Amino acid sequence: MEAARPLDALNKARNQRVIVELKNNKQLVGKLKAFDIHINIVLEEAEERVDGEVKRKLGTIFIRGDTIILISAQ
Amino acid sequence: MEAARPLDALNKARNQRVIVELKNNKQLVGKLKAFDIHINIVLEEAEERVDGEVKRKLGTIFIRGDTIILISAQ
Amino acid sequence: MEAARPLDALNKARNQRVIVELKNNKQLVGKLKAFDIHINIVLEEAEERVDGEVKRKLGTIFIRGDTIILISAQ
Amino acid sequence: MEAARPLDALNKARNQRVIVELKNNKQLVGKLKAFDIHINIVLEEAEERVDGEVKRKLGTIFIRGDTIILISAQ
Amino acid sequence: MEAARPLDALNKARNQRVIVELKNNKQLVGKLKAFDIHINIVLEEAEERVDGEVKRKLGTIFIRGDTIILISAQ
Amino acid sequence: MEAARPLDALNKARNQRVIVELKNNKQLVGKLKAFDIHINIVLEEAEERVDGEVKRKLGTIFIRGDTIILISAQ
Amino acid sequence: MEAARPLDALNKARNQRVIVELKNNKQLVGKLKAFDIHINIVLEEAEERVDGEVKRKLGTIFIRGDTIILISAQ
Repeated sequence: MEAARPLDALNKARNQRVIVELKNNKQLVGKLKAFDIHINIVLEEAEERVDGEVKRKLGTIFIRGDTIILISAQ
Repeated sequence: MEAARPLDALNKARNQRVIVELKNNKQLVGKLKAFDIHINIVLEEAEERVDGEVKRKLGTIFIRGDTIILISAQ
Repeated sequence: MEAARPLDALNKARNQRVIVELKNNKQLVGKLKAFDIHINIVLEEAEERVDGEVKRKLGTIFIRGDTIILISAQ
Repeated sequence: MEAARPLDALNKARNQRVIVELKNNKQLVGKLKAFDIHINIVLEEAEERVDGEVKRKLGTIFIRGDTIILISAQ
Repeated sequence: MEAARPLDALNKARNQRVIVELKNNKQLVGKLKAFDIHINIVLEEAEERVDGEVKRKLGTIFIRGDTIILISAQ
Repeated sequence: MEAARPLDALNKARNQRVIVELKNNKQLVGKLKAFDIHINIVLEEAEERVDGEVKRKLGTIFIRGDTIILISAQ
Repeated sequence: MEAARPLDALNKARNQRVIVELKNNKQLVGKLKAFDIHINIVLEEAEERVDGEVKRKLGTIFIRGDTIILISAQ
């Protein structure tokens, strides 16, 4: 996940597991399947985690970009 | 609900029951009937749920996209 | 209120009584007379309700779209 | 204040006294002199009211649209 | 400060002392020297006031429009 | 820092020391080196101040415009 | 990191370690690899710091621009 433009970096993370931190302090983990310029993203096999422990299994989810703080490769 | 672009994923969920989590921490469940690029969505047979229990039946509802955190296939 | 695009759904609700939930947790009920792409709406014979009881009669009101969480057909 | 488009409704209220409710819970009352598509508005002979009582006389004021929840004809 | 469009009203207040109320509840008073469509404004001889008393003298200031609730002619 | 348009005023303050007040109540002081229409700005020799005392030296910083309340010439 | 336009300043900081302060009061440190006009950025070898101490190692991260307050060269 390195590139001249930020979205190129997201593109390199496609199909890999990523951690998504939300503005409401929740952490979602899953395989990055899709994203767009608003940073709306789709995760597969997504889980919500608290302190590193799985709290909920969520399956495939669509996350609205404006709720996201950061995305990191796991 | 898997696709190259996030909205394609929503399109695959059309007419299926989805869970919508809002920024005010409420959870709405219903059949996804329509959405647009702002992630404004229409749910049919919608219910508000708290801790997995139905709190209110809402019928058909229009949800403004900027209040949405995530949408998951049930 | 069912349609391929969310605004079509609002269009079907025109001249019907709808419940509008706002981000400040207030609930407004009235006849839907007009809306636009920002989800700015006009309600006629509007009332503010708390726990199902009428708190204030407001007459005809213009509501700015960015304060709206959801609109449901009554 | 009835019309097919929300701004038409505001246009019908021009030169009439309206109540403007703001996101900070304040209520401003005055004669609607001007508005634009952002719902920026100008009120003449404006007053701030609390519980129906005049708290401050403000004269002519410009209100930025994104602070407005709703506008009602008095 | 009266006009068909809200920005015309601001234009009439140019070079006059105005009161600017901000979303953080502060009140700034000064001579209106410039504004644009975002309601970014420049005040000259600006002061911050609390309960009608001058708290700080600020000189010439640029205020970002999205922090403004209302502008009134003094 | 006086001009017909707000950005002209910022232009006159270029290379001068300015005080920038942020929405999180922090105050940054430094030499204004650059700005754009979003009011993103670059300060040189920047310091964070609390009650007029230097709390941190920050060197050259980029400040995102939407966090800014006001900019004043020192 | 000095330039006529704010983004030029970010460009000069490319491949250097920067400190990014977020609206949620967190501080992220890493090598600036990419940015765009929304100030979305990519950091490499990123760490979250609290009071100058490393709290978490994050690897390569994408940060959504609207969560950023400021970026400083370390």
